Amino acid sequence: MSDVPLAIGIDFGGTSVKTGVLYRGNLIEEAPRIDTQEFEEARPLIERIHETVRDLRSRHPRIEAIGVGMPGFVDFPTGMVHNLTNVKGWQRIYLKRELNELANLPVTVENDANCMAYAEWKRGSGRGMSHLVALTLGTGVGGGIVIDNRMVRGANFVAGELGQTSIDYQGPDGAYGNRGSLEDYVGNQQITDMAFKAYTDAGKSMERSDCEPAHLTALALKGDAIALEIWDRVARKLSTALMNCCWLLNPEAIIIGGGVAKAGSLLFDPLEKHLRSQLSPPFKENLRLLPARFGNEAGIVGAATLALEEAGFNVDD
Amino acid sequence: MSDVPLAIGIDFGGTSVKTGVLYRGNLIEEAPRIDTQEFEEARPLIERIHETVRDLRSRHPRIEAIGVGMPGFVDFPTGMVHNLTNVKGWQRIYLKRELNELANLPVTVENDANCMAYAEWKRGSGRGMSHLVALTLGTGVGGGIVIDNRMVRGANFVAGELGQTSIDYQGPDGAYGNRGSLEDYVGNQQITDMAFKAYTDAGKSMERSDCEPAHLTALALKGDAIALEIWDRVARKLSTALMNCCWLLNPEAIIIGGGVAKAGSLLFDPLEKHLRSQLSPPFKENLRLLPARFGNEAGIVGAATLALEEAGFNVDD
Repeated sequence: MSDVPLAIGIDFGGTSVKTGVLYRGNLIEEAPRIDTQEFEEARPLIERIHETVRDLRSRHPRIEAIGVGMPGFVDFPTGMVHNLTNVKGWQRIYLKRELNELANLPVTVENDANCMAYAEWKRGSGRGMSHLVALTLGTGVGGGIVIDNRMVRGANFVAGELGQTSIDYQGPDGAYGNRGSLEDYVGNQQITDMAFKAYTDAGKSMERSDCEPAHLTALALKGDAIALEIWDRVARKLSTALMNCCWLLNPEAIIIGGGVAKAGSLLFDPLEKHLRSQLSPPFKENLRLLPARFGNEAGIVGAATLALEEAGFNVDD
Repeated sequence: MSDVPLAIGIDFGGTSVKTGVLYRGNLIEEAPRIDTQEFEEARPLIERIHETVRDLRSRHPRIEAIGVGMPGFVDFPTGMVHNLTNVKGWQRIYLKRELNELANLPVTVENDANCMAYAEWKRGSGRGMSHLVALTLGTGVGGGIVIDNRMVRGANFVAGELGQTSIDYQGPDGAYGNRGSLEDYVGNQQITDMAFKAYTDAGKSMERSDCEPAHLTALALKGDAIALEIWDRVARKLSTALMNCCWLLNPEAIIIGGGVAKAGSLLFDPLEKHLRSQLSPPFKENLRLLPARFGNEAGIVGAATLALEEAGFNVDD
């Protein structure tokens, strides 16, 4: 262990900041979470994060880099966070510079969905692949893209926003005026709404909370026809955005994680069917639809792995 | 001129094969066209193409490479053409190998829309850019993508099929079962159909042929309200597929060519409006929507330029 570099991964969320130590792709220690909402400004929160970092380093002297995954757009080269919608005081914060000055270690800051994609590519279901699309299905839909063995960041480092792509040019306005955005069809709340309406229309009395994805999965596993139908409808909508990725990018795999993906084959089976029925042979022959390896720890693992690679270490071992 | 390499570009179409000689990005000679439909099999057509190549080389001894753009999927490394739907006898034809054996020159074979994108990137509106999406609007919709200074080909070298991406998950089945494919909304025929219906619905007696894109442009320029409305509807549909590219890839430019693009500002103005109204700032701040530089010669220019680069010559001068 003495000559293998360790890294700290930080998963910065709207509710809490999770911090952990990564050794050869494994999370060997997780620090107590920091409540994001306790802070009114960015600087005190950054200082609080640094206290956690200092504490972890006191026990793991071989920590060589710090990676942070952020729930918003990041200017990758400078590590500047543009804006966080759910956390006070985070507008144009040069997080990379500030944390680097405090910790005196290389710091990398990246969008959280890109960190998840990075974790799956380097340490998870996409290991060894050159072209993949990764997405997380939860409250929102996040995405990350790898093409030709490189993370696709684009001209302003904001690429990969699969959740904002449209599946209906006449659909309702999305968060950015984008009509028919995927997120507005297959997000947690939207699935719950769709199911609640379906049960109500069928004359079945259900609490809205009993229509959440986890409950729908349980119902579908018992053979409930409406729950099965809802998962098929989610799969059909999702397949449209995914086939668009396939026609544009011809990936070898699509990797799906996040809470909604816990539906497992209830989601994956109809998704495979709808996706493959809408692609020509060279796009689907070698295409694999895979569940993500990592769950809640994807952000920490991805951020730490990316930070090590950016600091010049080989993470492909 | 003596130490600058020349290349032959071949634009293989469903109707004719166009061949030309490229010198520093300029087409300096174009050979007589070959009628594609006169041939029942691939081999005699390849031999006929080689006669043209031999003739051009007799006058241009510095020709160093041959590039071919094909109207179908190509396995880029081997130069194998999977299948041409409109030309007899073209299934799994190893065009690169066959033409190389005849001509004894390096041969590169690529999809025609990728050749167009390559021409615009290296010699046209996208010169000097690192991330762009190029498309041709005509009978169909073709596309090519450049990310991080590389053509995106994907796992099976078939990426960039913008025309097959969906803008409506409930739309009609496309050529490959893909519901709501862009091509089925903004292809030449579809625009004509849409206009013919709009005029008929408005009680105006029009020949269908007077509703073709070129005529619609002429009508719109005279202020015809229906023609203007049709271009706006085309722009709105097209904007959906283009915004999807922006959210996924964050390009610095979208370059549009092909017959339908001749509508100019009648198409580009509403397209800019619809596209920008559906993107968040970091995706649109530096985004440029540009007309293609090349028209019919894009295929020849792109194929020849790509062939030179693949043969090891620097084409960025």
